[in-house]
Amino acid sequence: MDYVQAHYPEGFAHCFGCGRLNAHGHHVQTRWVEGKGRATFEPEPQHMAMPGFVYGGLVASLIDCHSIGTAAAAASEARGVDIRSEGAPRYVTGSLHVDFVKPTPLGPPLELRAWAVEIGERKVVVESELSADGEVTAKGRVVAVRLPASMGG
Amino acid sequence: MDYVQAHYPEGFAHCFGCGRLNAHGHHVQTRWVEGKGRATFEPEPQHMAMPGFVYGGLVASLIDCHSIGTAAAAASEARGVDIRSEGAPRYVTGSLHVDFVKPTPLGPPLELRAWAVEIGERKVVVESELSADGEVTAKGRVVAVRLPASMGG
Repeated sequence: MDYVQAHYPEGFAHCFGCGRLNAHGHHVQTRWVEGKGRATFEPEPQHMAMPGFVYGGLVASLIDCHSIGTAAAAASEARGVDIRSEGAPRYVTGSLHVDFVKPTPLGPPLELRAWAVEIGERKVVVESELSADGEVTAKGRVVAVRLPASMGG
Repeated sequence: MDYVQAHYPEGFAHCFGCGRLNAHGHHVQTRWVEGKGRATFEPEPQHMAMPGFVYGGLVASLIDCHSIGTAAAAASEARGVDIRSEGAPRYVTGSLHVDFVKPTPLGPPLELRAWAVEIGERKVVVESELSADGEVTAKGRVVAVRLPASMGG
């Protein structure tokens, strides 16, 4: 399935978290399904906090990039813009908040869902949940800020 | 110089962000200097958000692990515990908040400072700043929660 980050301009496709052109990165892929951003990520064995549990920095990173992709998709939909033909607008993170609800087991794929709770001219606020084995283990809130068009946004 | 994470129990020394026993991780090292946690980190070229700037997920990860190390040091000092002889207590992240004040340039070493603003029985609240080239580019606030002694805390 098509994903948001496939439509970032080339100059904005090198992010370690979600850039399709970063050879070493996580390659987060946000799919836009029925008004929500969805993504799945499979951590590697070294991404541990302690044996058996996912490292919180990875959880924060996934929530960050997935929320930014969701902001681009949500804002585009609200404006009637098709990112497949017009490209995805580029947002950056103004602030990132993560509540670690319970430890995230290392092993099952991680499922992310995110949705916009506020869409402004330059700012989109996105809330999200990360779950493993069907249980929510972290909740996120990201303030996404649109880059000026002169910077690629 | 000695650092806090050197004194985590072996079972808690595998964290991707700060575990001395994680072969692939970031190895954040928190030094306790005059009541503050300090750390320096040199990002690798692939840790980019876009060319020339550090990936926000890395900034969040560094703030997370450095704040947890600072919580252990601050709580130990407040209790008169010497972590070099008694080991560092192990905290986990309850919540992580990062304000990205401005883009962080990719190139210079990143300097982290963190300090406790609240030290409770089980909870330590830590605030922090990350800077590059002498300018603060991100501010953090972490709620650190002590693991029960039965789990290694």
